[in-house]
Amino acid sequence: MGLTPRQEKIAEMVRTLGPITGEQIAERLSVTRAALRPDLAILVMSGMVEARPKVGYYYTGKNTLSLLTEQVNRIKVKDVQSVPVVVTTGTSAYDAVVTMFLEDVGSVYVVEPGGILGGVVSRKDVLKVAMGGSDLHKMPVKVLMTPVTKIITTTPEEPILTAAKKIIDNEVDSLPVVVPANLRGNKVHEHEVVGRLTKTNITRVFVEIGEGRGGDSYG
Amino acid sequence: MGLTPRQEKIAEMVRTLGPITGEQIAERLSVTRAALRPDLAILVMSGMVEARPKVGYYYTGKNTLSLLTEQVNRIKVKDVQSVPVVVTTGTSAYDAVVTMFLEDVGSVYVVEPGGILGGVVSRKDVLKVAMGGSDLHKMPVKVLMTPVTKIITTTPEEPILTAAKKIIDNEVDSLPVVVPANLRGNKVHEHEVVGRLTKTNITRVFVEIGEGRGGDSYG
Repeated sequence: MGLTPRQEKIAEMVRTLGPITGEQIAERLSVTRAALRPDLAILVMSGMVEARPKVGYYYTGKNTLSLLTEQVNRIKVKDVQSVPVVVTTGTSAYDAVVTMFLEDVGSVYVVEPGGILGGVVSRKDVLKVAMGGSDLHKMPVKVLMTPVTKIITTTPEEPILTAAKKIIDNEVDSLPVVVPANLRGNKVHEHEVVGRLTKTNITRVFVEIGEGRGGDSYG
Repeated sequence: MGLTPRQEKIAEMVRTLGPITGEQIAERLSVTRAALRPDLAILVMSGMVEARPKVGYYYTGKNTLSLLTEQVNRIKVKDVQSVPVVVTTGTSAYDAVVTMFLEDVGSVYVVEPGGILGGVVSRKDVLKVAMGGSDLHKMPVKVLMTPVTKIITTTPEEPILTAAKKIIDNEVDSLPVVVPANLRGNKVHEHEVVGRLTKTNITRVFVEIGEGRGGDSYG
């Protein structure tokens, strides 16, 4: 989506001198106002320049990539999340691993009655304990899980972009997707697990957008 | 980047009737050729329509998303890959796990002399063996690795998009980045490991593009 040299010249003029009227731009370029119209239309259309009636053209700094950003921002966690794989707090570490293998996931969520998130156990957590020689059959999953207070979560309505940023910034493989638990008598801050957002989900979205299929599937 | 109703009408006309000249479009819309110019310029600029001299306008089917695709396709594996974490074929399974923990990676590459890729061992592979009660100290990593013949790889010059697609399609967490080994006496098809492409790398690119930083950072 390249601009012509004249369009780039106009964009630069609007950036440095804006707001500037079409007449002023035409004068500086020694062309007629009519001749400028297609170029200005393109710049406005591209989002790079905006027109304000009775004021003139001003620069927005947007480009194709910003438009993409807006597009990506419309995709929400609920549009791409996976189903959560859960075990209850009473499960043994051994059975948690069996669940991981059966479901082929890197981590399982440990939940209390009502689907309340209690913790997360990953392959890494179990491997660490197994290496230490502990008997996984006798060890409750509660002992080795990361407790809910230390877990980074996301919500169904969060834009996938900020959720992906959480994954990168906190160096985790997945985020539990949670909603406030609204059962009677719940403690404040209790959350029900409704999904799982993984780097696989993000990679899949990346492929779909990259292949030009993102616009139709989401939002 | 929305089109006006008239632009959409023109795009549809070009799609169904193209190649079609500007005069023909103007006639069908009962407007002057001059009045059409900005709309046609925008459609050409957006990439959706192309103009062929002495033939007319024809439809390309491209849109903003396709332009994004082109942009994403310029990012190569070498622009985003991580350094490979390797152990040698003689390493024990136990020491391979220690390396995984020290480097905080989900899998390590097993290499032969000269950095030739021999296999991959993941947390999952080791966990499976550990659950079976085997002594990891006595087990060579060679026994539990996925051999090179079954490994999906990528190259430094591959577009990140097709590499990401390999990760999704083959349900793997990472791809070794390899180049043909050019040492004397190598067997055909031997490859040297030069990097590691993970879902973390892809997720990071996704965040960077989504935040509008992709265009400057790559290719």
